[in-house]
Amino acid sequence: MSENRPTSFTCPLPIDQYPTVTLPHGGGGKLMNQLISEMFLKAFQPDETGQPHDGAVNFLGDSRFAFTTDSYVVRPLFFPGGDIGSLAVHGTVNDLAMCGARPLFLSASFILEEGFPMDLLWRVVQSMKAAADGAGVRIVTGDTKVVDRGKGDGIYINTAGVGELVSEDPIAPESIREGDVLILSGDLGRHGISIMTLREGLAFETKIESDSAPLVEPVMDLIESGVAIHCLRDLTRGGLVSALNELAMASRKTFHIREKSIPVSEPVHSACEILGLDPLSVANEGRFVAFAPASEKEKCLEILQSHPVSADAREIGTVVSTHPPLVTLETPIGVTRILPMPSGEQLPRIC
Amino acid sequence: MSENRPTSFTCPLPIDQYPTVTLPHGGGGKLMNQLISEMFLKAFQPDETGQPHDGAVNFLGDSRFAFTTDSYVVRPLFFPGGDIGSLAVHGTVNDLAMCGARPLFLSASFILEEGFPMDLLWRVVQSMKAAADGAGVRIVTGDTKVVDRGKGDGIYINTAGVGELVSEDPIAPESIREGDVLILSGDLGRHGISIMTLREGLAFETKIESDSAPLVEPVMDLIESGVAIHCLRDLTRGGLVSALNELAMASRKTFHIREKSIPVSEPVHSACEILGLDPLSVANEGRFVAFAPASEKEKCLEILQSHPVSADAREIGTVVSTHPPLVTLETPIGVTRILPMPSGEQLPRIC
Repeated sequence: MSENRPTSFTCPLPIDQYPTVTLPHGGGGKLMNQLISEMFLKAFQPDETGQPHDGAVNFLGDSRFAFTTDSYVVRPLFFPGGDIGSLAVHGTVNDLAMCGARPLFLSASFILEEGFPMDLLWRVVQSMKAAADGAGVRIVTGDTKVVDRGKGDGIYINTAGVGELVSEDPIAPESIREGDVLILSGDLGRHGISIMTLREGLAFETKIESDSAPLVEPVMDLIESGVAIHCLRDLTRGGLVSALNELAMASRKTFHIREKSIPVSEPVHSACEILGLDPLSVANEGRFVAFAPASEKEKCLEILQSHPVSADAREIGTVVSTHPPLVTLETPIGVTRILPMPSGEQLPRIC
Repeated sequence: MSENRPTSFTCPLPIDQYPTVTLPHGGGGKLMNQLISEMFLKAFQPDETGQPHDGAVNFLGDSRFAFTTDSYVVRPLFFPGGDIGSLAVHGTVNDLAMCGARPLFLSASFILEEGFPMDLLWRVVQSMKAAADGAGVRIVTGDTKVVDRGKGDGIYINTAGVGELVSEDPIAPESIREGDVLILSGDLGRHGISIMTLREGLAFETKIESDSAPLVEPVMDLIESGVAIHCLRDLTRGGLVSALNELAMASRKTFHIREKSIPVSEPVHSACEILGLDPLSVANEGRFVAFAPASEKEKCLEILQSHPVSADAREIGTVVSTHPPLVTLETPIGVTRILPMPSGEQLPRIC
């Protein structure tokens, strides 16, 4: 059909099994990871040596910078604690921070459906501006596309981000070492559960607010204080379980975590029971894990606990051996079990 | 509904007139420009001094870089001369080139609709890779979202791009000077017409191929040869007429162009007559105008004509006076008329 028809049409994914894209392909679990590794990474070969991380690190002149992108399709558009606009800023600045970069510039690209109310668009845009100001970034470039009625869902937003590397040493999966401690920045599951309770029309005594927030300040403080951080990862789609499984695979290490150490608020816990969800697999938008040498634990906790967004930081586990790559969980009754990668079905369109 | 509810809910657009988003808001004409200037630029204030251009130019350390984004929603996905994948690469590298930057890195973010065939996705992804190789850029980071059936249209792609500034002097609307010549890089209308003839099911004796192509090589050659380029702009949505009107407004200058000098192929001309379109307002994806001092004209033409993608380059007009900001056209019979900004209705979802 065209001169740039590629030479090979053989799809590298098991097409018999998944002839079409399914919702779990965007869910942050196994199928999404397969799509990324078997198709996108195979075709684009972004980095022949490193492992996939929240963003790409490259040079521009003498400066090292991180570059990342995310599209946001969350439903509903407005939820307790945020909206698609603030989420589109927080998600992308957090990905930059997880690379050890100070977020500087964002792009904002809108795919609008014909008929989307103009005043809602203005509300989303103002929310993006407020979130950008709060995270210390500037939205410097953008794009607008409109699709015909019935071919979209009101509004989709893409933000890409550029940040300057602050850390000298690579903050990346390949830097994780045996003996590192895993530090979790706060309680789990509030973003996903705030969305799910809205969707399901559930009412709880305590309103559950999303944890959506910029993580730039605690992360920059950690790095600038000279704490030897090995890796950072925010806990978005697929929650803690997906993030740790991805990192275990990428670093080829075993992580052992203790369920008792992991904070989950009472309302989130109750909602998870009703909805049949595991809070450890639920999406967050303002939570991360840090990997650091055990010797840095106290300093790391002290710094994180000094910031409101990570005031509840605590150690949840350790990197225990160099193989095989998996995540084990010690349950409250002392039994150890493997925490497998979620399939990705549980919470579509959470971000 | 949330703590980041903005303080002002008054939408800055005339909401009585356009209470909702309409297709022309994405069409590259008047309404899109109003949406951008009255809403996005007002909220985000990306650059308090400069004028909107194809990308934003900022510093990272000592390096100046350009940063740009575009979402691609073109239908049909495959067309003579390209597809949504190659377009998503060409469009973004061209925006970087128009800033005088050498494109280095792209991001790729996919919004996939549940049910989209996996082999088509693979075909698009391979086309992106081939186009990136052809343009000398690397796709280094990405994202995948899946939306439920009926909430998308198969596939939307966002690419953002980062490039390093090659030109010392700003290549931007504010650099345009009275007496500058306007040089057009080739014939107009092939991208838009190739899409429209497919959509309308029209058959012509000569198949019309999109002009979608990377413009990096001729632009880098111009700059590196020391030609004093004042401004560059690719002629996408709204074609030559939109691009020139935007630049006339941004530079506060009058441009005078001669219709006789503007190449339009015979098949495009015929198709435009049948479809009732003005080839000067039809989208291109591999064409640009350069503004340069008259003294640089010969050198500029010689360089452009040495590259296949701009072999047909020619002077089409001049910057004639410093006010008012408008575009005038001398018709083939010698009459001069104003070329107003298109409303943006004619070709939805062309890119």
